[in-house]
Amino acid sequence: MEGKLKVFTGSSNVKLAEDIVKNIGIELGKIKIEKFKDGEISVVIDETVRGYDIYIIQPTSTPVNDNLMELLIMIDAAKRASAGRINAVIPYYGYARQDRKTRGREPISAKLVADLLEMAGADRVISMDLHAGQIQGYFNIPVDHLSAVKTLSKYFKNLVKNQDDWVIVSPDLGGVTRARKFSNFLNLPIAIIEKRRPKPNVSEVMNIIGDIDGKNCIIIDDIIDTAGTITNAANALIDRGAKEVYITASHGVLSGPAIERIDSSVVKKCVITDTIDISNKEKSDKIEIVSVAPIIANVIKNINTNDSVSKLFD
Amino acid sequence: MEGKLKVFTGSSNVKLAEDIVKNIGIELGKIKIEKFKDGEISVVIDETVRGYDIYIIQPTSTPVNDNLMELLIMIDAAKRASAGRINAVIPYYGYARQDRKTRGREPISAKLVADLLEMAGADRVISMDLHAGQIQGYFNIPVDHLSAVKTLSKYFKNLVKNQDDWVIVSPDLGGVTRARKFSNFLNLPIAIIEKRRPKPNVSEVMNIIGDIDGKNCIIIDDIIDTAGTITNAANALIDRGAKEVYITASHGVLSGPAIERIDSSVVKKCVITDTIDISNKEKSDKIEIVSVAPIIANVIKNINTNDSVSKLFD
Amino acid sequence: MEGKLKVFTGSSNVKLAEDIVKNIGIELGKIKIEKFKDGEISVVIDETVRGYDIYIIQPTSTPVNDNLMELLIMIDAAKRASAGRINAVIPYYGYARQDRKTRGREPISAKLVADLLEMAGADRVISMDLHAGQIQGYFNIPVDHLSAVKTLSKYFKNLVKNQDDWVIVSPDLGGVTRARKFSNFLNLPIAIIEKRRPKPNVSEVMNIIGDIDGKNCIIIDDIIDTAGTITNAANALIDRGAKEVYITASHGVLSGPAIERIDSSVVKKCVITDTIDISNKEKSDKIEIVSVAPIIANVIKNINTNDSVSKLFD
Amino acid sequence: MEGKLKVFTGSSNVKLAEDIVKNIGIELGKIKIEKFKDGEISVVIDETVRGYDIYIIQPTSTPVNDNLMELLIMIDAAKRASAGRINAVIPYYGYARQDRKTRGREPISAKLVADLLEMAGADRVISMDLHAGQIQGYFNIPVDHLSAVKTLSKYFKNLVKNQDDWVIVSPDLGGVTRARKFSNFLNLPIAIIEKRRPKPNVSEVMNIIGDIDGKNCIIIDDIIDTAGTITNAANALIDRGAKEVYITASHGVLSGPAIERIDSSVVKKCVITDTIDISNKEKSDKIEIVSVAPIIANVIKNINTNDSVSKLFD
Amino acid sequence: MEGKLKVFTGSSNVKLAEDIVKNIGIELGKIKIEKFKDGEISVVIDETVRGYDIYIIQPTSTPVNDNLMELLIMIDAAKRASAGRINAVIPYYGYARQDRKTRGREPISAKLVADLLEMAGADRVISMDLHAGQIQGYFNIPVDHLSAVKTLSKYFKNLVKNQDDWVIVSPDLGGVTRARKFSNFLNLPIAIIEKRRPKPNVSEVMNIIGDIDGKNCIIIDDIIDTAGTITNAANALIDRGAKEVYITASHGVLSGPAIERIDSSVVKKCVITDTIDISNKEKSDKIEIVSVAPIIANVIKNINTNDSVSKLFD
Amino acid sequence: MEGKLKVFTGSSNVKLAEDIVKNIGIELGKIKIEKFKDGEISVVIDETVRGYDIYIIQPTSTPVNDNLMELLIMIDAAKRASAGRINAVIPYYGYARQDRKTRGREPISAKLVADLLEMAGADRVISMDLHAGQIQGYFNIPVDHLSAVKTLSKYFKNLVKNQDDWVIVSPDLGGVTRARKFSNFLNLPIAIIEKRRPKPNVSEVMNIIGDIDGKNCIIIDDIIDTAGTITNAANALIDRGAKEVYITASHGVLSGPAIERIDSSVVKKCVITDTIDISNKEKSDKIEIVSVAPIIANVIKNINTNDSVSKLFD
Repeated sequence: MEGKLKVFTGSSNVKLAEDIVKNIGIELGKIKIEKFKDGEISVVIDETVRGYDIYIIQPTSTPVNDNLMELLIMIDAAKRASAGRINAVIPYYGYARQDRKTRGREPISAKLVADLLEMAGADRVISMDLHAGQIQGYFNIPVDHLSAVKTLSKYFKNLVKNQDDWVIVSPDLGGVTRARKFSNFLNLPIAIIEKRRPKPNVSEVMNIIGDIDGKNCIIIDDIIDTAGTITNAANALIDRGAKEVYITASHGVLSGPAIERIDSSVVKKCVITDTIDISNKEKSDKIEIVSVAPIIANVIKNINTNDSVSKLFD
Repeated sequence: MEGKLKVFTGSSNVKLAEDIVKNIGIELGKIKIEKFKDGEISVVIDETVRGYDIYIIQPTSTPVNDNLMELLIMIDAAKRASAGRINAVIPYYGYARQDRKTRGREPISAKLVADLLEMAGADRVISMDLHAGQIQGYFNIPVDHLSAVKTLSKYFKNLVKNQDDWVIVSPDLGGVTRARKFSNFLNLPIAIIEKRRPKPNVSEVMNIIGDIDGKNCIIIDDIIDTAGTITNAANALIDRGAKEVYITASHGVLSGPAIERIDSSVVKKCVITDTIDISNKEKSDKIEIVSVAPIIANVIKNINTNDSVSKLFD
Repeated sequence: MEGKLKVFTGSSNVKLAEDIVKNIGIELGKIKIEKFKDGEISVVIDETVRGYDIYIIQPTSTPVNDNLMELLIMIDAAKRASAGRINAVIPYYGYARQDRKTRGREPISAKLVADLLEMAGADRVISMDLHAGQIQGYFNIPVDHLSAVKTLSKYFKNLVKNQDDWVIVSPDLGGVTRARKFSNFLNLPIAIIEKRRPKPNVSEVMNIIGDIDGKNCIIIDDIIDTAGTITNAANALIDRGAKEVYITASHGVLSGPAIERIDSSVVKKCVITDTIDISNKEKSDKIEIVSVAPIIANVIKNINTNDSVSKLFD
Repeated sequence: MEGKLKVFTGSSNVKLAEDIVKNIGIELGKIKIEKFKDGEISVVIDETVRGYDIYIIQPTSTPVNDNLMELLIMIDAAKRASAGRINAVIPYYGYARQDRKTRGREPISAKLVADLLEMAGADRVISMDLHAGQIQGYFNIPVDHLSAVKTLSKYFKNLVKNQDDWVIVSPDLGGVTRARKFSNFLNLPIAIIEKRRPKPNVSEVMNIIGDIDGKNCIIIDDIIDTAGTITNAANALIDRGAKEVYITASHGVLSGPAIERIDSSVVKKCVITDTIDISNKEKSDKIEIVSVAPIIANVIKNINTNDSVSKLFD
Repeated sequence: MEGKLKVFTGSSNVKLAEDIVKNIGIELGKIKIEKFKDGEISVVIDETVRGYDIYIIQPTSTPVNDNLMELLIMIDAAKRASAGRINAVIPYYGYARQDRKTRGREPISAKLVADLLEMAGADRVISMDLHAGQIQGYFNIPVDHLSAVKTLSKYFKNLVKNQDDWVIVSPDLGGVTRARKFSNFLNLPIAIIEKRRPKPNVSEVMNIIGDIDGKNCIIIDDIIDTAGTITNAANALIDRGAKEVYITASHGVLSGPAIERIDSSVVKKCVITDTIDISNKEKSDKIEIVSVAPIIANVIKNINTNDSVSKLFD
Repeated sequence: MEGKLKVFTGSSNVKLAEDIVKNIGIELGKIKIEKFKDGEISVVIDETVRGYDIYIIQPTSTPVNDNLMELLIMIDAAKRASAGRINAVIPYYGYARQDRKTRGREPISAKLVADLLEMAGADRVISMDLHAGQIQGYFNIPVDHLSAVKTLSKYFKNLVKNQDDWVIVSPDLGGVTRARKFSNFLNLPIAIIEKRRPKPNVSEVMNIIGDIDGKNCIIIDDIIDTAGTITNAANALIDRGAKEVYITASHGVLSGPAIERIDSSVVKKCVITDTIDISNKEKSDKIEIVSVAPIIANVIKNINTNDSVSKLFD
């Protein structure tokens, strides 16, 4: 299959797809995607895909169900058109947070989505900073699981003049591994925000473990959704003596009041990637976007030539 | 399994579900369905379904992708909660019109939807007046395929005083079988509207086959979507001498300008069923709704007691 | 896989297979197919297929069950012999008319056949003028759906001196789309035979829509099976003033009294293709056969080199 | 499901099915099976099967492909009609002798048949004296594997006055286990016919291991097909001093010259069961048929009431 | 199926199985499990399971591969013997810690095990305190996920006289949720041990968050394997002023030097459950075992009567 | 895929794997396989396999469950790492003797193993002298079934000076085909040992069919497990006048007292292949090992270049 690839994009994040193909040095494949008046999606691939290694770029961000269904329909069309190998490129994987039952009679929607993708005909999934690593195990097809952490860290490399003035902060206990990985790229210490109920029925206490006094803090998370928790954390850090607070995450979902909250918070800058298209949201000077297009382009090139993907992340 | 059933509803058509369970003589099962800020659907079934025969009422009408995904997630939750047998009740089956490839590199979305439902864990599908009978064959699980044609015909039984004054009209060649079946219930003759291009590159001619002059016409279709074709047909009938024109269909999709078109057309009444909830649309005095809740309730009762469903439609 | 292909034939239509490989410019692959005394089929492939792109030519015409089973067994043998990609070439798809349930407790045999083919190990199906387009959706593997309509039209191109003397006739309402497509190739007008029961319990009336008076008619259908309907239609056309009547179809099943009926009818010529082998039937001067071998050969070549198949039909 | 069963028959062996239901004490279920002029099979089940435990009696004997396809179509119809559990009762399993590859590029048709049955929707298979026990392993659904050996032995119990005058003979090395099992029921010694090529390129020698001189021999096999080998064996036994020779087998395929061969041989009686219908073959006074209907009836009853089937064969 | 159940045990933890059936009030089902000289496992179920609801008790603890394979073989035997519904009761789920890829080219063995169980024929899995909740999502069959935390807490209820003297300790950041859940049952505060590398390339620092000075500590984990980490943690707590240290966990794997380490540590008592049989290990006075047999027995009873399982854990 | 292959080995028979790659002329692929203290296997593939044709050498000999599970985990790792085609090379297939049910409620473990291998992701199996040919049919993926019989025969070619002094012996009736095939390579006569119970309840008699008096005998079997039967057979042959007795088999399982039995028996030499590693067993001068590495190497080369494998065995 080597050397014969085509990249198509769904309507979720056209800009990212364009940047990816520009990095690869090819054009986007021609495809017509429309919505009928009643909301049904119509897809026609407008050039041959017979035997080609196909990549479909479609983060399943808001509107998640439309984007997911569009992706499934595109896969179906490609499969029926005899595409050689269908790679679903899902930089942001919607429903990832519904990855287990926390009580009786809940779905595991992240697994359902995996099953739907395999059912439709995907041969491989390429995703980025999945909410839980176990989601890879929801698939029986290969998953190339990329990370934007290194890319995000590069943004901060320029800011960090003196390593003693900076600290990486995990906004909760669950995020410590991510924070540590991030701090390794910048050679910085870490701190942890811990919300703990010391005794049952006693109200939560917010602890900050590690030294943040007088320092610039970078809070890192995987997803910034409504931005409530992370802006509260930022405020708390300032209260406890931090100098400046940056927040950063791979995926800027930014739903509901997120941007307003960030704007009105103490946060200096919110650094996210372009896995999710936010061009239709209100603008904010605080939000900085770094692109994952070069990473994804490299990964596609290596997959297409059967080169190692792991080595791109060493 | 006999005798232990529970009926749940998605958010697509709650009123229909309530009418169904009222006809069965039970309460709706408790379930919590929410949408997060980012559009992801969250489902928790709030009572035990272990070993129960479960029916989930969810026409996949607009917003079709949300309604479909909600249905799939509910099925996943029920499956993981050890439901005995999961019946997806889909009175209106979205994407039914995308049932084959009309040219290269198209999807067959109606088949994709069938696969997704089986994948999620549905054990049976109950649907109504599918756009093409072949859609039953897209499933490997049993499909109980109901019809609202008899129910619609009852509405007109009261109007038809003199059979010589009335005629059933098929709006196109493809709908003749449906029109004939409908006319049998009312003991009326049929006419056909035929749009034909007598020669290539010559403009279409609208023929009316059968006698409509001075008669009340009932145009029957399976779906009224944007209502363009059917209101044009109604106008044409009046132009050719028809007295009054009624239009009727199992499924009132009524998307975009549909209601406005009906209101401003010569159509006397538009008679549809409640497979699709239109309570959120503008009101129109011309639209009459007959309920399929009694049929579906009977079918559920017979399935649950392992009685024949076919005999309900003889 | 490109460039390494082998074509094998079952016993259904050896002549067609030979014509196909002649068009491709290769030899038929060696295979030994025998029937034991008790009717069981025995297959041994007599040359390596390891890694090859394999095409098995086998229309599932009469004896349909033997031909289908033979095809399945050949696929099984090829799969176990490590064939690279197994393409089932089924120019005539038996059981295609059993494509939906018309009442309770019927099978959907056309779907069953699709499932059996996938189960046995087919990777792709190549078929021609399927009775219903939805049959493509019965498969989850790619289906290349070819058409013989253009080929049939070429036969008539030579006959049609004056376009005003000719008309294409659809033998029923369901065939109008096919007739229109056919007429486009010949630039001729169309007419439709419509059998309609104007009122329930009143006997059927045969209408002819469109102008046939004094004209040569070409009735087109997809399948000519027992030839009852189509010869009746031919007679009716002559009765209503047609000059000469030709009948044509992609698939000449010609079962039971078909040939006798055609011979004794007003039909001038019956033009069919060679998707089904009729060499074992009585001869008739009225029957003309045009070959689809060149089309199928081209399609196989394009599939094998991963070229577009759609473009062959533009 | 207990207690709700229906038994249907295909057209392969209606007499056996009638005898089975008579033994159970019920009527055969109503089903309409027809063959169209072109050989396609049409099936309609004429009574409800919803939720019933269904048994379909269909040995896949000659015409094997028709009988197999008919069975698959019946299963499909029952599945789509919401049958509770579909049991395929296949007393004679066609293609059983194609159970492994004896050289490169052969199919394993016995496995293919198993896959087709599961694909069509069978939930359980009930079969009898399978040519190889490993065929059970071809299924992932339960197989109730019955034996007619005890039933056959009962026929001979009446004949054997003096045990010293009788011997059981295996017609080849592969059949010794079957012969030994059979001899246990009659408390008789066994002998073995062994065809052996002492050196390569030297012609085969027929050895008889064990004492047959002056004795009545009963040659037992699983299948009598063309009867060539077994009648040759009978002749050889007489040549070596045997008194009378009986032949017996579970399955009387009797294809080609079988009956003629038996009639013209030294064989005294050929005792077979009714797993295969031979009513359409020439009659022979030498052929005696014992019925397996009572066994199968008991097995169906026990399966239906969830009783052990093994204990019926202890 | 209600009311007809049988419980079988593999050889992994016979004592637990005996305790479970005693709690249910039935006998263990008869099954013969042997190991051949070459290590292959042989299984024969010695009583009918036809139509029964079968529960197979088999924690997949050391020797994990033997126990897993034995379980798969038992499931296969039950499936082929027409068991009604096969429930794999796996109180300890081996390979649970291999639940995601931490770098390129690793397996996800916990998912593989799930696939093997479904493939073999399990209809449901009952497990306890899975290492990661996402493992439920590895299955497409229902998983009843039980917890021993409440049972463990009961052991300590008797010890805790004065709540001010006690504290629950999580041995790492990942276990905080478990510790909090546990503390809720005892109404005690929690503390956390945090190992953190403040800067890259600086050695790890062990922090204790929360007040432990002069208190009795209960360290809770899900699994105690080689006991290295947890005994180190215990020692550290004593060093920082703790009075007495208890350790507790659902699963006592206790491999390698575990018991020796516990014995020679400051640990007062190690409280585990009987999900894993440790009767073949050296004895230790420090180890206390509480039984999960009553919980599992109740769960089996409720599943068998289609009662809610969730309500048992409220 | 042609030309890009990598061969990995599990821990079952490293020596064989090394000999295979030496014959191919490449190095073994880098992989790290470890066992945790609790017996769980850990696998990391240490070089890229993306798009490669992968061969994993792993006979599933004792410890069979560990070796099988290790193989499954390696396949899982290779699949998730995007290996092109995964070939499981299983020269000795454990559980092969459990290939059918000999009575009620037994598993068919040989089929279960086949299902597990397909489930894990194997694309092809390469095995040798399977206990029953039908095991090929347990797979739906291609199986290349090799034979060591020719290789074994070469060992004896050097010994056999005078063909009149030698005879091939089958140790039981079931092995005659194997013995005949073996004798063809050496151009020798065959004899058969037959254990027969002439009448029920009479003790077994050991017959020797064919001439062995004063001859050197080579007893051939597929597996030598505990060596009880075959050494008894050897003793019997000597008792009946044989000169010297050799025993030979493809697979030297040699479990329990096997080597001791051989050493203390009349057997002159026991010639086996290296499908199973016996380096950890006691040494015996009587045991001679011939290598199948060259055969397997050739097969891998031919598979990799899509050349016929059958022709290697003609």
